[in-house]
Amino acid sequence: MILDATFARGPVSAGTSGDAWLVALLEVEGALARAAARVGLVAGTAADEVSRVCAEPAALDLAAVYARAGDAGNPVPPLVRALQDAVGPHAARAVHVGATSQDVVDTAAVLLARRGLQLIDADLAAAAGACARLAGAHRDDVLMGRTLLQQALPITAGLKAATWLAGLDGVRARIAAVTAALPVQYGGAVGTLAASSGSGVDLRRELAAELGLAVTEVPWFTVRLPIADVAGVLGAAAGVVATIALDVILLAQTEVAEATEVAEGRGGSSAMPHKANPVAAVSARACARRAPGLVATLFAAMEQEHERGAGTWHAEWPTLTDLLGTVGSAASWLTECLASLRLDPERMARTVAAAGDPQLAGALAEALTPALGAGAAHDAAAAAVREAAAAGRPLADLVAGRTDVDGAALVADSSPDVGEAGAQVDAVLAAHTIAAQSDPIAGGPA
Amino acid sequence: MILDATFARGPVSAGTSGDAWLVALLEVEGALARAAARVGLVAGTAADEVSRVCAEPAALDLAAVYARAGDAGNPVPPLVRALQDAVGPHAARAVHVGATSQDVVDTAAVLLARRGLQLIDADLAAAAGACARLAGAHRDDVLMGRTLLQQALPITAGLKAATWLAGLDGVRARIAAVTAALPVQYGGAVGTLAASSGSGVDLRRELAAELGLAVTEVPWFTVRLPIADVAGVLGAAAGVVATIALDVILLAQTEVAEATEVAEGRGGSSAMPHKANPVAAVSARACARRAPGLVATLFAAMEQEHERGAGTWHAEWPTLTDLLGTVGSAASWLTECLASLRLDPERMARTVAAAGDPQLAGALAEALTPALGAGAAHDAAAAAVREAAAAGRPLADLVAGRTDVDGAALVADSSPDVGEAGAQVDAVLAAHTIAAQSDPIAGGPA
Amino acid sequence: MILDATFARGPVSAGTSGDAWLVALLEVEGALARAAARVGLVAGTAADEVSRVCAEPAALDLAAVYARAGDAGNPVPPLVRALQDAVGPHAARAVHVGATSQDVVDTAAVLLARRGLQLIDADLAAAAGACARLAGAHRDDVLMGRTLLQQALPITAGLKAATWLAGLDGVRARIAAVTAALPVQYGGAVGTLAASSGSGVDLRRELAAELGLAVTEVPWFTVRLPIADVAGVLGAAAGVVATIALDVILLAQTEVAEATEVAEGRGGSSAMPHKANPVAAVSARACARRAPGLVATLFAAMEQEHERGAGTWHAEWPTLTDLLGTVGSAASWLTECLASLRLDPERMARTVAAAGDPQLAGALAEALTPALGAGAAHDAAAAAVREAAAAGRPLADLVAGRTDVDGAALVADSSPDVGEAGAQVDAVLAAHTIAAQSDPIAGGPA
Amino acid sequence: MILDATFARGPVSAGTSGDAWLVALLEVEGALARAAARVGLVAGTAADEVSRVCAEPAALDLAAVYARAGDAGNPVPPLVRALQDAVGPHAARAVHVGATSQDVVDTAAVLLARRGLQLIDADLAAAAGACARLAGAHRDDVLMGRTLLQQALPITAGLKAATWLAGLDGVRARIAAVTAALPVQYGGAVGTLAASSGSGVDLRRELAAELGLAVTEVPWFTVRLPIADVAGVLGAAAGVVATIALDVILLAQTEVAEATEVAEGRGGSSAMPHKANPVAAVSARACARRAPGLVATLFAAMEQEHERGAGTWHAEWPTLTDLLGTVGSAASWLTECLASLRLDPERMARTVAAAGDPQLAGALAEALTPALGAGAAHDAAAAAVREAAAAGRPLADLVAGRTDVDGAALVADSSPDVGEAGAQVDAVLAAHTIAAQSDPIAGGPA
Repeated sequence: MILDATFARGPVSAGTSGDAWLVALLEVEGALARAAARVGLVAGTAADEVSRVCAEPAALDLAAVYARAGDAGNPVPPLVRALQDAVGPHAARAVHVGATSQDVVDTAAVLLARRGLQLIDADLAAAAGACARLAGAHRDDVLMGRTLLQQALPITAGLKAATWLAGLDGVRARIAAVTAALPVQYGGAVGTLAASSGSGVDLRRELAAELGLAVTEVPWFTVRLPIADVAGVLGAAAGVVATIALDVILLAQTEVAEATEVAEGRGGSSAMPHKANPVAAVSARACARRAPGLVATLFAAMEQEHERGAGTWHAEWPTLTDLLGTVGSAASWLTECLASLRLDPERMARTVAAAGDPQLAGALAEALTPALGAGAAHDAAAAAVREAAAAGRPLADLVAGRTDVDGAALVADSSPDVGEAGAQVDAVLAAHTIAAQSDPIAGGPA
Repeated sequence: MILDATFARGPVSAGTSGDAWLVALLEVEGALARAAARVGLVAGTAADEVSRVCAEPAALDLAAVYARAGDAGNPVPPLVRALQDAVGPHAARAVHVGATSQDVVDTAAVLLARRGLQLIDADLAAAAGACARLAGAHRDDVLMGRTLLQQALPITAGLKAATWLAGLDGVRARIAAVTAALPVQYGGAVGTLAASSGSGVDLRRELAAELGLAVTEVPWFTVRLPIADVAGVLGAAAGVVATIALDVILLAQTEVAEATEVAEGRGGSSAMPHKANPVAAVSARACARRAPGLVATLFAAMEQEHERGAGTWHAEWPTLTDLLGTVGSAASWLTECLASLRLDPERMARTVAAAGDPQLAGALAEALTPALGAGAAHDAAAAAVREAAAAGRPLADLVAGRTDVDGAALVADSSPDVGEAGAQVDAVLAAHTIAAQSDPIAGGPA
Repeated sequence: MILDATFARGPVSAGTSGDAWLVALLEVEGALARAAARVGLVAGTAADEVSRVCAEPAALDLAAVYARAGDAGNPVPPLVRALQDAVGPHAARAVHVGATSQDVVDTAAVLLARRGLQLIDADLAAAAGACARLAGAHRDDVLMGRTLLQQALPITAGLKAATWLAGLDGVRARIAAVTAALPVQYGGAVGTLAASSGSGVDLRRELAAELGLAVTEVPWFTVRLPIADVAGVLGAAAGVVATIALDVILLAQTEVAEATEVAEGRGGSSAMPHKANPVAAVSARACARRAPGLVATLFAAMEQEHERGAGTWHAEWPTLTDLLGTVGSAASWLTECLASLRLDPERMARTVAAAGDPQLAGALAEALTPALGAGAAHDAAAAAVREAAAAGRPLADLVAGRTDVDGAALVADSSPDVGEAGAQVDAVLAAHTIAAQSDPIAGGPA
Repeated sequence: MILDATFARGPVSAGTSGDAWLVALLEVEGALARAAARVGLVAGTAADEVSRVCAEPAALDLAAVYARAGDAGNPVPPLVRALQDAVGPHAARAVHVGATSQDVVDTAAVLLARRGLQLIDADLAAAAGACARLAGAHRDDVLMGRTLLQQALPITAGLKAATWLAGLDGVRARIAAVTAALPVQYGGAVGTLAASSGSGVDLRRELAAELGLAVTEVPWFTVRLPIADVAGVLGAAAGVVATIALDVILLAQTEVAEATEVAEGRGGSSAMPHKANPVAAVSARACARRAPGLVATLFAAMEQEHERGAGTWHAEWPTLTDLLGTVGSAASWLTECLASLRLDPERMARTVAAAGDPQLAGALAEALTPALGAGAAHDAAAAAVREAAAAGRPLADLVAGRTDVDGAALVADSSPDVGEAGAQVDAVLAAHTIAAQSDPIAGGPA
C-alpha cells in the first residue's frame, strides 16, 4: 500500500512479508521429509518427491490452502493436505512425518527470523561502515557536545560517529549470537515424539542439520525463549537506530545546521518549497518507533498454556513479521541517511568557538578549587556565568578582570579541550576492523 | 498473505488496508476543493473537476505517486503533483488549497479510523445480539462460578452472558462517543492558515461539514488527543473481546465441556483427528492480544516536536492501520464464535450439583457465626472442608453429624442459590434494548 | 527513596502511594457497613461502630494485616478479620456484608483513581492557566514555526501556547468525563449477590451513593472497562504533558534560546558550572515517558478469567498506582515548568527576520503559479532556494533580480504573515474561559 | 505499602528498592576515588577518606541531598556536594574525579541491575531445583497433554517439569551472560574524558576493575545497549515464570485437580471458606504480568539525544528498579509455588485412561492410511470420533466393529504411548546437572 514506501523499506520487507511465510512453511516440510528419510522412517524417493514439490509451491492447490487457512487456527493443516494431494499416495507418507502444526510453524518462524536478521544485519553493516568512514574523516573535528539538549563542552565529530559505530557493532554482535542459537522445533502433537516411531530425537537432530539450526533437549512449544531472544535483539537494534537517527535530526535543525542529508529528490514539502527535510533520518526514526510496542507484545505472549498456547502462540506470527519488517526498514533508512550525510566542520568549529564560556567556566571552577574547595568553587563559577549573562558580556571579560585567579591565563588557555577523544575513536575503529573481519551470519543449511 | 485468514478477518481489513489510505487521502483532497469553492477561494467548476478526479484514482499517474511516496516522508507531495497534472492547469489551483501534507494525512487517518470503528461496531453489535440471546435463553440455567480458576459458587449462564453483553454495549457506547468527536485537520504549513487568504477558519468549518467531522479551535498537529481517543477505545474493545473469548476457551476445555463452538469445518488439527478446537475464540484472542502493544506505540507517539513531529507523527500511520485491522479481526472472530456457541445446561447443572460443598461450607460458616463470631466461624467451616477432603467424604456427611448446628437442615437447604442473578440479567437486557434502538454510528458527510 | 524527588513529585504521590490503599480499603468497608444499615441488613449501631473504626486505622491490628496480606493473594481477608476483631462480636456482623474481596479492592481502586485524577486535574488546571497567560501575553509575538525540526514559516508564540492550552483543556474534559462515570463494585463472591439476603441490588445503589460513585447493572469483575477508561485518559494526559515539555526543551536549546525556565536553584550540573538545564521540562518528560508501558499493562490485563482473574486482576493494582503517580508527577513538573517559563520575544523576532527565505520562497511559488502551474512553480521556487544557498546569497537578492515575476514587490512584501493566528488564539481562550468556569471534578460522597 | 506483600516479595525488593540507589551511587563514588588514586590523579589518603565516607552514608548530610535531589534533574550534584563537605577540603579533590553525573548514575544502575539479577537468579536456581526433583520423581507418570486447552494426547509429568526446567535453565544462562558483560560508565561531562588529566581511559579501566565490571571503548551515554540487555533478559525471565505459573493454575483447576499448592495458611478467601487458591502461582503470574510494559518503556527510552538524554535517560531509573522488583517477586513466588507443589499421579492417570479416544483416533487414522491415503484417513478417523460422540458411545466400540481395519487389535493396543518422553527428560536433567555445577553469577569487585 501507499505507506509501504516508508514502512516497508529495503530488502527485509521482501524477505519477511507476502509469500515469505508460505515459502518458509514449505521449506520446513521439505527438510522434514529429507530428515525422515535420513533416519529411515520414509523412503528416499518419497522424501525427494516431497522435497521437490515443497520447492515449487505452484504445484500445490494454493487457493484451497488460502481458503481454509483460518479454519484450523493455523495454515498447516490445509497445507499438509495440499502437499499430500500434490505428491500422490506413495510419497504422501513422507509428508509431515511425526509432526504437529506447531513444529512447522515455529521452525518456519525461526527461518523467517533468521532471514530477516541477516538482511537487517547487512544494512547495519553498511551503516557501520558509513560511521567508520565518518569517524575517520572527522576524527579531530571539534563539535559541540550537548547534554539535555544544552550546549555543554566540545567533543569531536569523530567521537560522535565512533559512539554510533560502537552501538551498531554492538547490535551486530548480539544479532550474530541470537541467530547462531536459533533452534528447530520438533516434538509431535504434544512433545513426546510419539508419532516418530522411536526416531524422534534423531529426526529432530537431522532436521536441525538440514536447516542449519540448533537443537534443544525438549520442544519449546510453550517456553518461548527463542522468540524472546529475537524480540530482544530487534528491540535493541531499533533503539540504536533511533538514537542515531535522532542525533542526525537534531544536528540538521536549521539553527544547528551541522549535518545535512544530501540526496537528490528527497526531503521536499508539499507546502514549503524552501524545505530540505532529513527524510531518511525521520523515516528511520518512524520505523524504529514501532518496535517497542511489538517487542512488548512478544514478551507478553510468552505466557502460553500447557502444551500449546490458545491464541498467545498465534499472536506471535504477525507481530514477529511486523517487527522484522519495521526494524529492517529502520535499518535500511539509516543506511540511506548515513550514506548521504554531510557534516560541516566549519560550522561545527564556529559553534564551539562562539561558546567559549562553558570551557572557561570549568577552568575557572578548577582554578578556584584550591582556595575555596570544590563545591564553593563550582558555585562561584556558576555565579560568574550568571553575572556575565545578566550583563550581556562575554564571560572572558569578567574572568580576565578577576584577581583571585590568574584570569588572563585562564582566558588565554581556554581553547577547546577534547581530552582523550582521539584515542577512544581509534579504539572503536580498531575493534570495528576486527569485528568486520569475522564471518557474516551463517545463512542456512549445513 | 497466508496469515491473513486469521489476522485480517472480516470487513474491517478491507476497509482499512490495501488502497484504503489512498482512497481516504483523495477523499480529503476532493472535499477540500469543494470546501474551498464554498468559501469562494476557487471556482466551483475547478473544484468539481478536482472532486471528480479524486473519486476516480485510476485517472492519476499512481505509479509515479507510489514511486515517490517515500521521498518526502509522506505520500501527499507526489499525490498533489499527480492531481495537479490530472486536472489540468485551470483546476490545479483548486488542488490542496492552503493545505499542508499533515492536513490531508491526519484527516485521512480520521476518516480511516471512523470507517474502521463503524465496521468494528457492526461486528460488536452482532456479538452483543448473540449475547442477548444467550442471556435470555439461559437466564436461569445454573453454571459454576469460578474465581482464580477455582470452582467457587454457582451463578447462571444468563448472568455470564449478560456480563459479556454489558461489556460489549459499554464498548459500543465508547466507540460512538469517540467517533462523533473525530475532528478535521486543517491548518496550513504551520497552523496559521496563512495560505488560506483569510478564509482559513471558514474553510476548516466547511471541510468538516463536507466530511461529517467535528472542528477544533486550532490545529492538533502535535497535540494528538484524537489519535489517543481512538487508541484508547480500540484497546478497550480488544480487552472486552479477549475476556469473552478467554471465557469461551476455558468453558470449552475438555474437562469443563460446558461450551462448544459448533461450526462445520472449523477446529481440526493436523496431528490429531479427534480434536475440535474452539478456533474462533482462539483466533479472537490472538487478534486481541496484538492490541495493547500497538496502543502503547500510539500513546508514546503523542510526544511530537514543535509544529510537526519528526518520525513520531509518521509512526502513527501503520500503527493505527494495524490496530484497526487487528481489533476488527478480533471482533469478527468473536461474532463467529458467539454465533456458533452452544452451552450445555445439563452439564452445567451436573457440575454445580457435584460441587455441593462450597455452598454448604458457606452455609455452615453462616450458621456458626452467632456462636463463634464471623472470623472463627469462617475458620471452622474451612477446617471442616479440609477434614472432609482428607477423609475423602462429602462435606454433607460431616455437617449432617455436627451437633453445634442443625446439620441436617443445612444439608437439606443447600440447593444452589443464585441470589439476584435473574434481576441483574433483566436489567442488562433492558439497557441493551434501549441502547440497540439508538442510531448507528454516523457514517459520513452531513 | 532518592529518586522520589523526581518521580514522586507533587500532591498526587501522597494521595496514591504509601498508606493510600489501606485508607481506601477501609473507606469502602465503612461505607459498605453504612449502606447495609440503610437497606436494613444490619443494625445502625453496628454500622456506626464499623464506620468509626474504619476511619481510625490505628485501632486495627495492622501488623497482622500486613503480615498476612500476601497469603490470600489480596489484602482484604486479613483486613476483614482485623476489622471484625476490632469492632467486637456485635458489630462484626456489619463488616463486609455480602461482599467479596474484589468488591472492596475494586471500589478502593476506583476511589484511589478518582482521588488521583482530581489531584492531577488540579495541576493540569494550573498548567492551563499558565498557558492562557502566555497565549494572552504573546498573542501577536512572532515565533518561527518548525516542522520535522526544520524552520518552516512563522507562527506566533500565542498560537503555540494556545495549542498547548487546547491540549490541556481537552485532557481535563476527558478526565472529568471518566471521573464522573467511575462505578462502584459490589457483587458478592461470584456476582449473584447471593449473600446479600435479597437486597444486593439495593445495597449496591446505596453503597454507590455513600461514595459518590456510579452504579452498573452487573458487576464488572472481569469486564474491566472502568480501568481501561482510567488508563486511557492517563495515557492521553501523559502524551499532552510530554509534547508540551518537549517543546520547551527544544525552545530552550542553546542554539534556539527562545524559552528559559527561570527558577532559583534548579538546573545545575555536577560537571559544568555554566549549565542551566530546563530541569522541570526534562523531569516532566521523564515522568510522562513511563506512562505508555503502564497503560499497555492495564489494557493487557483486561483479559480476565471467569468470575475473577488469576493474576491478571492483581497486576492492575501496582500498575494503576504507578500510573497515577507518574502522570501526576509529570503534571506537577509541567506546572512548575510553565510557571517559570520566560519567552524571549526579541530573540524570536530576530530568528524570524533572519529566516526571510521561507516566506519569500512561498511567495515566489505563488507568484509563478499562474504562468507555470502549481507543481512547476513549486519546483522553480525550490530551485531558487537551492541556488541561493549554493551561492551563499540571500534568496531576496535572486528574487529581486528575476524578470518573470515582480521580484522587488515580492521582496518588499515578505514580512511575516501569521494568517489567522490571532483569531485562533482568541477562540481557544474563549473556550478556556467557559471550561474554567465549570465545576471542578466532583470530590466524593453525595 | 499494603500491596508489597504481593508485589515486593523475596530478596530482590530489599536489594533494589529503598536506599539501594543511594548505596549504589556511593559505592561508585568510593570506587572512583580509589581508581583515581590507582592512576595517580589523587592522593591515596584522600581516596581512602572518600572511600570510607562512601561506605557510611550516615556521615553525610542526607537531608540536604534528599531535599535537593530533584533540582538538578538527578541526585548526583547534591550528593557530590555532601560528600565534599563530609570529607573535608583535603580529600574533596578525590571526590567525583573527572566524572559527570551520568557516569555515577549509570554505573550505579549497572550495580543495582547486577545485584538484582543475582538475587533473581538465586530464586530461579531454587525453582529449577524444584523442577528437577519433580521431573525425576514423576519421570514416567502419564499426564494428559493439552493443546489450545483441549485434551490432546498423553505426555508425562516428567516431560512437563523438564520443559519448565529447560526454560528456567535457559533464562539463567542468559542472565549469566548479560551480567558478565555489564560495563562501567565513565566519560566525563561529554565523553571526551577531558577532566581526567589524560588518564581517563586508564581510570575507566581501573574503575571497572574496582567494581568487577566490563569496560567499553567509548561511553555509552546515549547508546543504551547495556540497559537493553538487562531489559531483554528480565522480560524473558518474566515470560518463563509466567508460563510455568499459568500451567500450575490450569492444572490446579477444580475440574482438573492434578496439581495443588500445599501451604499452610495460604490460599484462603474472604467470602468462601472452602476455597484453596494456588496463591503463589497466581501471585507469580501477577508480578510477571507487569514486566512487558516496563520492558517496552526501557526499549523506547533508548532513543536519547546527543550526549545525554533529556528525560529519556531519567525514565530508565524507576523503570529499571520496578522491573527488577517485579521480576524478582515473580521468581520468588514461583519458588514458593514449586516448593509446595504436589502432583497427583493417580488423578493424572485416571484422566488419561478416561480419554482413550484421542490415542485410538490417531491409531485408527494410521491404520487407514495405507488404504485411503493420509488425508482421507485423517478425515475418516475424525468422522468416527464425531459419530461416537453423537451416539454417546466410546470410540472403542465403533472401532472394534470396523471391518476395514483390525479394530479389535487397535483397541487392545491403545494404551498411552508417551514416545520418547523419558529420554528427553533424561537429557534435560543431564544438561541441568552440568549447568548447576558452573559458577554462580560473579558477585562484585575482582
